[in-house]
Amino acid sequence: MEIQLWREILDPYRQAVDELTVKFDHMIQEHHNAGIYCPIVQVSGRVKKISSILEKCQRKNVPMEELEEKIEDIAGIRIICQFVEDIERVVEIIRKRSDMIIKKEKDYISNSKESGYRSYHVIVYYTVQTINGPKNLEVEIQIRTLAMNFWAIIEHSLQYKYKENMPDEVRGRLLRAAKAVDALDMEMSSVRDEIMDAQNSNRRKAGI
Amino acid sequence: MEIQLWREILDPYRQAVDELTVKFDHMIQEHHNAGIYCPIVQVSGRVKKISSILEKCQRKNVPMEELEEKIEDIAGIRIICQFVEDIERVVEIIRKRSDMIIKKEKDYISNSKESGYRSYHVIVYYTVQTINGPKNLEVEIQIRTLAMNFWAIIEHSLQYKYKENMPDEVRGRLLRAAKAVDALDMEMSSVRDEIMDAQNSNRRKAGI
Amino acid sequence: MEIQLWREILDPYRQAVDELTVKFDHMIQEHHNAGIYCPIVQVSGRVKKISSILEKCQRKNVPMEELEEKIEDIAGIRIICQFVEDIERVVEIIRKRSDMIIKKEKDYISNSKESGYRSYHVIVYYTVQTINGPKNLEVEIQIRTLAMNFWAIIEHSLQYKYKENMPDEVRGRLLRAAKAVDALDMEMSSVRDEIMDAQNSNRRKAGI
Amino acid sequence: MEIQLWREILDPYRQAVDELTVKFDHMIQEHHNAGIYCPIVQVSGRVKKISSILEKCQRKNVPMEELEEKIEDIAGIRIICQFVEDIERVVEIIRKRSDMIIKKEKDYISNSKESGYRSYHVIVYYTVQTINGPKNLEVEIQIRTLAMNFWAIIEHSLQYKYKENMPDEVRGRLLRAAKAVDALDMEMSSVRDEIMDAQNSNRRKAGI
Repeated sequence: MEIQLWREILDPYRQAVDELTVKFDHMIQEHHNAGIYCPIVQVSGRVKKISSILEKCQRKNVPMEELEEKIEDIAGIRIICQFVEDIERVVEIIRKRSDMIIKKEKDYISNSKESGYRSYHVIVYYTVQTINGPKNLEVEIQIRTLAMNFWAIIEHSLQYKYKENMPDEVRGRLLRAAKAVDALDMEMSSVRDEIMDAQNSNRRKAGI
Repeated sequence: MEIQLWREILDPYRQAVDELTVKFDHMIQEHHNAGIYCPIVQVSGRVKKISSILEKCQRKNVPMEELEEKIEDIAGIRIICQFVEDIERVVEIIRKRSDMIIKKEKDYISNSKESGYRSYHVIVYYTVQTINGPKNLEVEIQIRTLAMNFWAIIEHSLQYKYKENMPDEVRGRLLRAAKAVDALDMEMSSVRDEIMDAQNSNRRKAGI
Repeated sequence: MEIQLWREILDPYRQAVDELTVKFDHMIQEHHNAGIYCPIVQVSGRVKKISSILEKCQRKNVPMEELEEKIEDIAGIRIICQFVEDIERVVEIIRKRSDMIIKKEKDYISNSKESGYRSYHVIVYYTVQTINGPKNLEVEIQIRTLAMNFWAIIEHSLQYKYKENMPDEVRGRLLRAAKAVDALDMEMSSVRDEIMDAQNSNRRKAGI
Repeated sequence: MEIQLWREILDPYRQAVDELTVKFDHMIQEHHNAGIYCPIVQVSGRVKKISSILEKCQRKNVPMEELEEKIEDIAGIRIICQFVEDIERVVEIIRKRSDMIIKKEKDYISNSKESGYRSYHVIVYYTVQTINGPKNLEVEIQIRTLAMNFWAIIEHSLQYKYKENMPDEVRGRLLRAAKAVDALDMEMSSVRDEIMDAQNSNRRKAGI
């Protein structure tokens, strides 16, 4: 498939990512302005690279014509929370919005993957307006704590390096790191009530 | 009204401006990617300053409680076109979108204001999602050529300086400048077909 | 030359463009904050596309090894002024800065090109820090009014379309448009003093 | 001191923060483009809020006239690293640059604060060009891992809430969390060589 065609396919996904990033960023701002603790610390988004899409199609045996139905994470939004407890709150906020419809939820927090991966995934339908009319497409929203994100970025690099053949020893170290992530998140959770309370009152004092 | 309250009122308008700016910017990108001449060259947006809102309320005798119904340009989007003919095309694109509903159109192109002001205004209803649920609000979209915009910026500064009392001599100079704007736009229109054709083919050649 | 090599060559130019854009944008902000009329309305920058660099090398018979010495506009900054008189002021500001050294000035305002093109070009040396140490490179700064810019963008598209063979008739229309640009800039200049005065005092009043 | 004066004081610091953010962001990009492992994952910057400056002046008994000499963190840059070992590498990169001169280094990594705080601080002199000529000012660069940053943000909120009077119990929980941070950073360090190697080769493969 040539570059021009890829551009036309991926363009609406890029649009969805940009619109959703703006929307979630505003959600943070809105909490701040209203002086309410915000469960989100950071939002980022990306459109999957062409090379990664091709590789996933091959690995999952997806023909090019079914690309858009079968690959759910062409557009991806990543939402970072301070505390594990905030993840559920973000999911609830998404469930209530009328501009995105949930297709599927995957809870890798309660059931972490074998590798140690933890995150909450929500696949939503989202509509963008294109020059050819409205287009409804799928976006994967990943919700995780800062510590989980730290681990996930590193695991992704290693997955990418070793493909199916990660040495047991490396796999073992990753699992130990995953446990250290859990331990950190648990210690952090113990100050969550203090923090929520602190951040609420800070906002009110801050001003300038 | 204190600053915290203003923030809460203006926040959704800021959100609307940011979302719409992203959307119109993408429209430009989309035309480029598809190798089609784009009627829009530039998009910008702003939320009206509190001091300007207050002044407008006073001038139009609008009580604070009716602020949001009566002041239609709290949120403003400005779309700049290369050619006069492109303005109508942009209006048509807006009319077809399902994410904004037109409330009103004001054609100051066919009927320029006494001052010499020319632009096409479209007031749309647009819905943003807030922490308190969806909020439907009004946004003013101003569509004009580069030359009209140039004039309008300068006229705005002078209006602001003189309020109701602009000296006749200054007013006269502004009108002469407005005529020079029209003359420029007419000369430019005479190369529009060449340009549309050129830009379409450029895109296809360009690539990298 | 392969894409990886191009990236390494162009990367410092991209860096220069980003740094200079931030610097000139701040210059605008600084004038506003100090309540002083700013001669700059808008700043943008770009790194020349690879295809355009290749084409220029071919046209000017520049071997690839001399690319960086011979092509002065790999990095380009465009500064837009409200009035013709502001252009000289911007040049003076550049002359006084110690972070960029002027290599050459080309005054296409006093001596417009045959095509009708008008702009003031300043080629500066600018140093960026790279992972391999400091690198001194050339940047072309184009300074022009809004109206001149309007014309230049359109002329560029037509140049690109026709290459050396622009039909006389099109050339004639462009020249007439260039005259309309001059006429507009002259009319505008007649309100410049009013505007400078207005914008200075507006700033002081504005505040919020 | 009125708002206009504050603006004029803080404006050059805002400029320094913006310029340095662009510069460090480019450093990341440059490593990627060259296919070299980058010790920096993320850069952010801020100018201290007026209320925080005032509070610090009061706490440290700094008269307003000595504000700029005595408060070293009016402009702050935060650099986030993946691994503890990367921090030293970033410091070395800063030491080699000729556009910022190191005034002072504070190593809270080897000697963490009593509270559990860990970070490497570098105070640099950096020159910006203003409308009144060049101005040399101080910027605090904080370098830390993702996990340290996580902890520091939370500790800052609690400090802000309790001022001098943080309850022992909360202080204890923070210290336990700081230990969990160290444990995580140590586990992560055990895969650093793998990661550096993986990220270097990924870059080369990636391309599109």
